[in-house]
Amino acid sequence: MNTINIGVVGYGYWGPNLVRSFAEVPGSQVVAVSDFSIERLAKVQSRYPAIKVTTNAQDLFADPEIDAIAIATPVSTHFDLALSALQAGKHVLVEKPMTVSSEQAKILIEEAKQRNLVLMVDHTFVYTGAVRKMHELVATKAVGDIYYYDSVRVNLGLFQHDVNVIWDLAVHDLSIMDYVLPSKPYAVSATGMSHVPGEPENIAYLTLFFENNLIAHLHVNWLAPVKVRRTLLGGSQKMISYDDLEPSEKIKVYDKGITVNGSPENVYQMLVGYRTGDMWSPKLELTEALQTEAVHFIQCIQQGDRPITDGEAGLRVVRILEAATESMKKQGALIELDKAKVAA
Amino acid sequence: MNTINIGVVGYGYWGPNLVRSFAEVPGSQVVAVSDFSIERLAKVQSRYPAIKVTTNAQDLFADPEIDAIAIATPVSTHFDLALSALQAGKHVLVEKPMTVSSEQAKILIEEAKQRNLVLMVDHTFVYTGAVRKMHELVATKAVGDIYYYDSVRVNLGLFQHDVNVIWDLAVHDLSIMDYVLPSKPYAVSATGMSHVPGEPENIAYLTLFFENNLIAHLHVNWLAPVKVRRTLLGGSQKMISYDDLEPSEKIKVYDKGITVNGSPENVYQMLVGYRTGDMWSPKLELTEALQTEAVHFIQCIQQGDRPITDGEAGLRVVRILEAATESMKKQGALIELDKAKVAA
Amino acid sequence: MNTINIGVVGYGYWGPNLVRSFAEVPGSQVVAVSDFSIERLAKVQSRYPAIKVTTNAQDLFADPEIDAIAIATPVSTHFDLALSALQAGKHVLVEKPMTVSSEQAKILIEEAKQRNLVLMVDHTFVYTGAVRKMHELVATKAVGDIYYYDSVRVNLGLFQHDVNVIWDLAVHDLSIMDYVLPSKPYAVSATGMSHVPGEPENIAYLTLFFENNLIAHLHVNWLAPVKVRRTLLGGSQKMISYDDLEPSEKIKVYDKGITVNGSPENVYQMLVGYRTGDMWSPKLELTEALQTEAVHFIQCIQQGDRPITDGEAGLRVVRILEAATESMKKQGALIELDKAKVAA
Amino acid sequence: MNTINIGVVGYGYWGPNLVRSFAEVPGSQVVAVSDFSIERLAKVQSRYPAIKVTTNAQDLFADPEIDAIAIATPVSTHFDLALSALQAGKHVLVEKPMTVSSEQAKILIEEAKQRNLVLMVDHTFVYTGAVRKMHELVATKAVGDIYYYDSVRVNLGLFQHDVNVIWDLAVHDLSIMDYVLPSKPYAVSATGMSHVPGEPENIAYLTLFFENNLIAHLHVNWLAPVKVRRTLLGGSQKMISYDDLEPSEKIKVYDKGITVNGSPENVYQMLVGYRTGDMWSPKLELTEALQTEAVHFIQCIQQGDRPITDGEAGLRVVRILEAATESMKKQGALIELDKAKVAA
Repeated sequence: MNTINIGVVGYGYWGPNLVRSFAEVPGSQVVAVSDFSIERLAKVQSRYPAIKVTTNAQDLFADPEIDAIAIATPVSTHFDLALSALQAGKHVLVEKPMTVSSEQAKILIEEAKQRNLVLMVDHTFVYTGAVRKMHELVATKAVGDIYYYDSVRVNLGLFQHDVNVIWDLAVHDLSIMDYVLPSKPYAVSATGMSHVPGEPENIAYLTLFFENNLIAHLHVNWLAPVKVRRTLLGGSQKMISYDDLEPSEKIKVYDKGITVNGSPENVYQMLVGYRTGDMWSPKLELTEALQTEAVHFIQCIQQGDRPITDGEAGLRVVRILEAATESMKKQGALIELDKAKVAA
Repeated sequence: MNTINIGVVGYGYWGPNLVRSFAEVPGSQVVAVSDFSIERLAKVQSRYPAIKVTTNAQDLFADPEIDAIAIATPVSTHFDLALSALQAGKHVLVEKPMTVSSEQAKILIEEAKQRNLVLMVDHTFVYTGAVRKMHELVATKAVGDIYYYDSVRVNLGLFQHDVNVIWDLAVHDLSIMDYVLPSKPYAVSATGMSHVPGEPENIAYLTLFFENNLIAHLHVNWLAPVKVRRTLLGGSQKMISYDDLEPSEKIKVYDKGITVNGSPENVYQMLVGYRTGDMWSPKLELTEALQTEAVHFIQCIQQGDRPITDGEAGLRVVRILEAATESMKKQGALIELDKAKVAA
Repeated sequence: MNTINIGVVGYGYWGPNLVRSFAEVPGSQVVAVSDFSIERLAKVQSRYPAIKVTTNAQDLFADPEIDAIAIATPVSTHFDLALSALQAGKHVLVEKPMTVSSEQAKILIEEAKQRNLVLMVDHTFVYTGAVRKMHELVATKAVGDIYYYDSVRVNLGLFQHDVNVIWDLAVHDLSIMDYVLPSKPYAVSATGMSHVPGEPENIAYLTLFFENNLIAHLHVNWLAPVKVRRTLLGGSQKMISYDDLEPSEKIKVYDKGITVNGSPENVYQMLVGYRTGDMWSPKLELTEALQTEAVHFIQCIQQGDRPITDGEAGLRVVRILEAATESMKKQGALIELDKAKVAA
Repeated sequence: MNTINIGVVGYGYWGPNLVRSFAEVPGSQVVAVSDFSIERLAKVQSRYPAIKVTTNAQDLFADPEIDAIAIATPVSTHFDLALSALQAGKHVLVEKPMTVSSEQAKILIEEAKQRNLVLMVDHTFVYTGAVRKMHELVATKAVGDIYYYDSVRVNLGLFQHDVNVIWDLAVHDLSIMDYVLPSKPYAVSATGMSHVPGEPENIAYLTLFFENNLIAHLHVNWLAPVKVRRTLLGGSQKMISYDDLEPSEKIKVYDKGITVNGSPENVYQMLVGYRTGDMWSPKLELTEALQTEAVHFIQCIQQGDRPITDGEAGLRVVRILEAATESMKKQGALIELDKAKVAA
């Protein structure tokens, strides 16, 4: 296989991780990095003397040596950069959230499709051992029918000025759910509040409705005294607790639940039984998520595979972020996901 | 002061606790207990030979020796029993939720007012050391302006057939909030789901809106693999974590938060600073809540005081339960609390 | 089977639990209780009108209706009471520690043996679901060779005036070890300290030496700011954590450990490999320990079985308590268990 | 002040941290690094092109540009390297444990004293915010009289071939105690066990005796299923819990304890009262320990100050390690620290 040459746009918070990952995994090398900041580019040079640097991202798109572009810039710039890269014939890996609107996401998907290029969204959590184990437990029916997905992601975090807390934090949970759950939500109801005048909401609650009595709920908060990263997933056969702050036992599988017995004569009065059994915490794959993800991106390019977190996944997440923001403005009003402004 | 003679209606799950409490605290004695079950009444007699027993609650209302009635029966019977007791001139302590509708609650309040009788609702948590400490920290402005109140009350719990999980579990949080928070909510948005055909919702999420950017949220669930009883209360000066499962340090006060600085020219771009300081877990009053509550009920009767958890508090909680149930049916539609059917 | 009639001596802290247990389990009934305190005996009568009460334990021993005596008095009185009971032909269940010396324990064992009576020591923890599960995991070789047993039992506890903290707290761990571990210790080294002038040691550390490189260690402390009840058991195949304060997952089994590879040429430089796998928390039997124990005592009497926690087990524990106290006085000097003054 | 030029010997596990720290703090710069491995030296060069590298540590000692040497090599080499450095007139910072014997430590102390050079031992934990806070709480008498110091430092850790677990793990606790406690121990009793044939002990327990009824105990273990880093410090006024694995509240101060009342007539029967109050978790200094330590080393050189963790502190720790190892061989036999073979 040919080595895939990567250009990285943006060397702020996340960019250095992308550079390191593509530099380390087999099958790829980073050949150029662009950033507005001369200072940051100096860091690139001192650490990776062989990598070309530039303040102009267009230099990367124009570089015939480069096969793929990884974009790690603020979300408002994702669309223009990704579109230019695709139009220049480059495969694209773009930070989450994919774009600021589902319209933009659709255009990128179409562009990549037309040009037969890989378009992947950096939904990093999907590539962790914990989330992959949850996916496996759901996909193999070990959990049974899924009843609910409930996640809390709160701490005293950096207030963003350009996006509300949903776009900053819930995006993680939505990308995980998109991968783990067996179906997609049809509507969302969200509530939230801003505690700094003129600033976006810093606390928010989302309920997502699915067919088959599956319900999901997210609590995100930049203003909590304690850090919590905990997901509960309830099923008819098993229930899962996923605590990302646990150093080793992140996933716990409980053999707990209810058994429902109804008789034909009396469907309205079901007999609910309770079941409690062992708890089991499976060993998780320890490979760093970003490495797994980089390998996957390279492979999709080389073999023409569709990424797990492709443009469609990115679009589905953005569509929910949009709808949730709209619902939040209307204090919980139900927004159907197919009828959201996406459609336009 | 004269000893207050108590009659207890209902000797199922909670009744024995009421009997024990009124038997132990000074100023009261239990003179009679009624229950449908002969078996339960036999337990009363073996443990308290001096207490009269009867299968007919009306015997208690007719008994001139009895000053006050404590009602610990299913919620659907509260209204009739409490109304009869009041009409018979007895003071009343009634289990939570007070009634099945706010209309009923209003009638009881009016009846008690007309007859100048004490009407108290058994919002037990309000009388715990932990909740009283939270109340104190809020009332003395130690917490500053309140930003949010967030509570999780989940476990693998008994599925009820007659009420949804909100009426069973959220009633605790609503009674705590009614006591602790400085204002009352103006609207509610709730979502939830039933996972047993024909049965009420077993998982639910409530958002409560208040004036002044205060938001509250409750998560209640009968089908969780782990037991959680945790409340976060965020304020401008301090943030509180209240974990009812902690054996000793239930309340933790964090000197954490944000500081907001805006300039006249740029009100739209506030500067948010972050503050982290000591954590402090105050010693809590250890008296059993039910004892404190029993003493308070006796005192209100003897001195003509208004109970902390009076009929109005009971009504406010019932009104929210009604509105939340209505909102849940409409998948999160905002229900204003003043315009709820209560009004009728 | 005939019902076994029980007499209980001592109705202080533990006695009421014994009375309740023997009253509830099938096959036995409590016919009499003795205690020095008239007040306590009044409590017996109000709760159990059918039980005879007396201030003189000898009345129980002389009562031909009584088959077995349960002794729940201070340890200094165990020997005289148990001996009298045995001499009167009664089976005996005695609180832990069995006696104040191993000499006394031996006399009781001999007396019971001569008279063919059941002599059982109330090592309650042995009858809990958690300890029985540990026993099973060790006995079935699931844990492999046992490397160490480490227990911490500390909290702010009641200072005793007559016995040091080893006799009060370590007795629990020693009785658990006696049941769970596959062999018996040959020597003990203990250290400790008293922080109240003239009073026995309130903090102590015991190391127990076994054959085959098994080592055990206990930390007991009446003066700790937090309550800890945690045992680690390390084996060649699995490692166990037993946390008695966990509400449900008390036992956790870790598939962790080392693998040792040595070659004949280089036995002095072993290759140590590390293994980490799943963690598993088995569901535990929830029957109350004291009920299981009462049933076992009844069965031993009826069927002539030897109790799991027989007089020999009680003696082994007392022998270690003696030796540890002696070692503690000598600041850790090794005391061999066979040569301890027991021998006299 | 002149900039202090540092030479670092050893670029394995810890050396890179020393290089980074001295490169970052003001007042010092790293001018040369030595290591046996060409590969490691290449890493130095790629990261710090200005730093000279050599495979021969003697080049650093001979370099007139270098003021001070930091030694991060295996403990068996500390003595020779440190002695050569001192003899070459360089100030020395040496990894812990300082040397393999107290004899060696004494020689280094004497050499540094004769030449008026700074000799500091890298007891890193002493420079953490948590340990400094404990020191402050003890030094200001907030804790009152110290009753005990108890530490557990266990996990599934790397088995060492050249030193036992005491030299690897207990060295941390001993260096912390040397700084925090108000007095020095006079004797040690230690027990332990090896579970790999021919290898040093992998589990060990140390009791340290002090004057005034202070007792300390350490539990260190390379073969534990869970990671624990917890210290309890009991005093007459307050009790401290120090949990190094807590992300933020590492230090908790409990207003708990006993009060002792005795009368002249009855000194043998003291009245023990119990006190429980608030818990308080102070905010800790967040500066990285190694940075604080590097600044301190520079300052000691520039101002002729005596380091907090000077050669004498290193010697005291080594002396205890020696004595504990000796006691462990004798299964807990008490080894007095002044009479240890050190004296020879």
